[in-house]
Amino acid sequence: MLEELKAKVCEANLELVRRGVVIYTWGNVSEIDREKGVVIIKPSGVDYSGMTPDDMVAVDLETGAVVEGKWKPSSDTPTHLELYRQFSEIGGITHTHSINAVAFAQAGMDIPVLGTTHADYFYGDVPCARGLTQEEVASAYERNTGRVIVETFRNRHIDPMALPGVVVMNHGPFTWGKDAAQSVYHAVVLEMIAEMNLKTLALNPNAGIKQYVLDKHYMRKHGPNAYYGQMGVKE
Amino acid sequence: MLEELKAKVCEANLELVRRGVVIYTWGNVSEIDREKGVVIIKPSGVDYSGMTPDDMVAVDLETGAVVEGKWKPSSDTPTHLELYRQFSEIGGITHTHSINAVAFAQAGMDIPVLGTTHADYFYGDVPCARGLTQEEVASAYERNTGRVIVETFRNRHIDPMALPGVVVMNHGPFTWGKDAAQSVYHAVVLEMIAEMNLKTLALNPNAGIKQYVLDKHYMRKHGPNAYYGQMGVKE
Amino acid sequence: MLEELKAKVCEANLELVRRGVVIYTWGNVSEIDREKGVVIIKPSGVDYSGMTPDDMVAVDLETGAVVEGKWKPSSDTPTHLELYRQFSEIGGITHTHSINAVAFAQAGMDIPVLGTTHADYFYGDVPCARGLTQEEVASAYERNTGRVIVETFRNRHIDPMALPGVVVMNHGPFTWGKDAAQSVYHAVVLEMIAEMNLKTLALNPNAGIKQYVLDKHYMRKHGPNAYYGQMGVKE
Amino acid sequence: MLEELKAKVCEANLELVRRGVVIYTWGNVSEIDREKGVVIIKPSGVDYSGMTPDDMVAVDLETGAVVEGKWKPSSDTPTHLELYRQFSEIGGITHTHSINAVAFAQAGMDIPVLGTTHADYFYGDVPCARGLTQEEVASAYERNTGRVIVETFRNRHIDPMALPGVVVMNHGPFTWGKDAAQSVYHAVVLEMIAEMNLKTLALNPNAGIKQYVLDKHYMRKHGPNAYYGQMGVKE
Repeated sequence: MLEELKAKVCEANLELVRRGVVIYTWGNVSEIDREKGVVIIKPSGVDYSGMTPDDMVAVDLETGAVVEGKWKPSSDTPTHLELYRQFSEIGGITHTHSINAVAFAQAGMDIPVLGTTHADYFYGDVPCARGLTQEEVASAYERNTGRVIVETFRNRHIDPMALPGVVVMNHGPFTWGKDAAQSVYHAVVLEMIAEMNLKTLALNPNAGIKQYVLDKHYMRKHGPNAYYGQMGVKE
Repeated sequence: MLEELKAKVCEANLELVRRGVVIYTWGNVSEIDREKGVVIIKPSGVDYSGMTPDDMVAVDLETGAVVEGKWKPSSDTPTHLELYRQFSEIGGITHTHSINAVAFAQAGMDIPVLGTTHADYFYGDVPCARGLTQEEVASAYERNTGRVIVETFRNRHIDPMALPGVVVMNHGPFTWGKDAAQSVYHAVVLEMIAEMNLKTLALNPNAGIKQYVLDKHYMRKHGPNAYYGQMGVKE
Repeated sequence: MLEELKAKVCEANLELVRRGVVIYTWGNVSEIDREKGVVIIKPSGVDYSGMTPDDMVAVDLETGAVVEGKWKPSSDTPTHLELYRQFSEIGGITHTHSINAVAFAQAGMDIPVLGTTHADYFYGDVPCARGLTQEEVASAYERNTGRVIVETFRNRHIDPMALPGVVVMNHGPFTWGKDAAQSVYHAVVLEMIAEMNLKTLALNPNAGIKQYVLDKHYMRKHGPNAYYGQMGVKE
Repeated sequence: MLEELKAKVCEANLELVRRGVVIYTWGNVSEIDREKGVVIIKPSGVDYSGMTPDDMVAVDLETGAVVEGKWKPSSDTPTHLELYRQFSEIGGITHTHSINAVAFAQAGMDIPVLGTTHADYFYGDVPCARGLTQEEVASAYERNTGRVIVETFRNRHIDPMALPGVVVMNHGPFTWGKDAAQSVYHAVVLEMIAEMNLKTLALNPNAGIKQYVLDKHYMRKHGPNAYYGQMGVKE
């Protein structure tokens, strides 16, 4: 019964490669079936070429145990599960090591909102979650990666549905959305705005944007009176 | 009777994707039939893959009302219409979020003319139009985007036919030309000179060009005694 | 009898597109038949798609008059002719507006020799020829572009066969070689080393290379005791 | 009997081109058969297009003499041989002139470890080996290139199996691995982290990473309790 979801998750993983944001086995995409409490995710360290829905792994949302599948799940699975447990509205998650988003993660910097391309998808600076402590790394490293992301959004009062992504210090970006495909879409957008913003800061380190422009752009696509896109095919 | 124009506008939109200056649904191209007072433009938020001439939307130049078409027009339509109304010689308009041009827009900087690649197409610095005020954003945002572009050209005494493009602060580039195809051509050139000039400024923040070199290059392609290209196939 | 040469020049022009160093009608390649005193060059402003050998133009080395061909020759033809007249050993010339080489041209900077990739092809800094004076621009602009290149090599005592390229201030790169194909090869290499060196200078503005490393690399490929490559297929 | 190895080495060389880290004849890959004391390497200056296993050259590990093959071996062969002799556990070596890794080489800088992408493959800063002295260049240049690499790893107490790559001052990167294919893999990763780290330093010149994060990432893939990837298909 998970066949349809496996096909969607496999396709979303392959889309990452086609969009040029991952190479080799890097990156992983998952989607959750909240009714069943099951998450479908890419296997660990398996190449994208020749990957089929049958290679996807189903794990239990609470325990992380493999429910179905012939491979070990991605080593980042505990990060995905933590995000699904704490961000109850998200349906899909993507992790990549795309170059420009990683540059911000490695610099330990938020990706500042500097323009409308960013504002159309992310309602504010994309936060850089703090690095993990030695203790957090030593035990349950991947789950703790999820925890610092959640901590960042809670401490800074950010709604994860209005700002569907983060960079983790010294690591890289995680993005999410209503399903696997949308989380991939956000990963591609995040990489593009990271490149735009890196170049903007090279031209003008004091660049910024007015709050009311940010409000306008985000709301015309996502607010209650959104008028971007067609009815039913928004975004 | 608009079928031929719809085909041209559709093709121009697809060319944007092939040239690598837009992804997903980003960007839009239009062309005007000045006799009929009708503008053909890309629909809002519809993906480029599988787009056909039949998806294009015809709107009235003065009212913006949809004259023909099954979709809502691009949300940037009021910007296009304002430009067509105020710049009476232009025939096509392109808007993108291409990375390097956006970097200048986000930095709030003109793209300075630094070389002959630029001078062959744009007769001077490509201006950065000011950001909109809170009032301008609050009502008729997209039309006001067109108005600040027009204001920029009028205040700085720039001829839009000699300098067929602009970047709007915190937003991105708009380019135009005699038709949709030429506006796309200018969008691709603008992105390339934005990358060249960003890199030039990294090497030498004081780079510049003599006025007489700018004059020479622009005039050998566009002046009354132009000698670049073949008769009738200039550019 | 020029058919074979036209085919070579056409192919060399198309190679520029395949290597990603020109778009649209930008750039041009020529080759000379020194016995006949005839230069074959790309037509002016004609698109690469569908270009055939028959589109190439044959011009007289001394007068620049069209000897054969249905199009006007490239507007840069007088620059090519001046270089063929003054650099008697060169057989082919390429001009592009490739992004990174143009950045150095616009910055008014030599492309400094910083590594062995550069030293394998260009025996020293690739010079930036000075900008033209107002008088030089006003009459015989393109021929004078060739003259400032020649002046640069003479004043700086550079052998054009050991350093087969230049960037012209505010304009872009010209490269040459034994034939059209090799001049294209050098245009591609120049673009790549321009990108390498731009990035090197961003990391370390004081980067440099020892003269004896430059000597070694250039000589192992091009010196009397060259040992790089196969006999007869050097480079 | 070397046919199988020649096929592997040829394929690894072609992979370099497909991954975009070499153009023309640049770069070379080799693999060793330690039982036979024979190294298979790319021929010197032969183009990748149309290259077949039969073009590969077999040389003696100790003497460098050609054992089999119709071409001269790569001019960098003495560098490869020195590394195989001194780093007894490596099975394949790749040399490229990839742009971002060369930028660090030309800047004379280590590629600092700034994130987990790097830590997953290279256990610490990728060292920049010193430039050669005039004497080292004058005689046995290529072998001495290998010697300064070995000297760098010995002086800095770096295990070449934990840090399978280096950039040589003013030259470029060399990477290695258990076989030719893995050395190519590391060359591609090195280029990607060089680009990430160059951009990170542009954003934040003081970027760094905690030792315990580096330890964690390297060990989860390569340590005795590695849990990344599938059993038997690690990496």
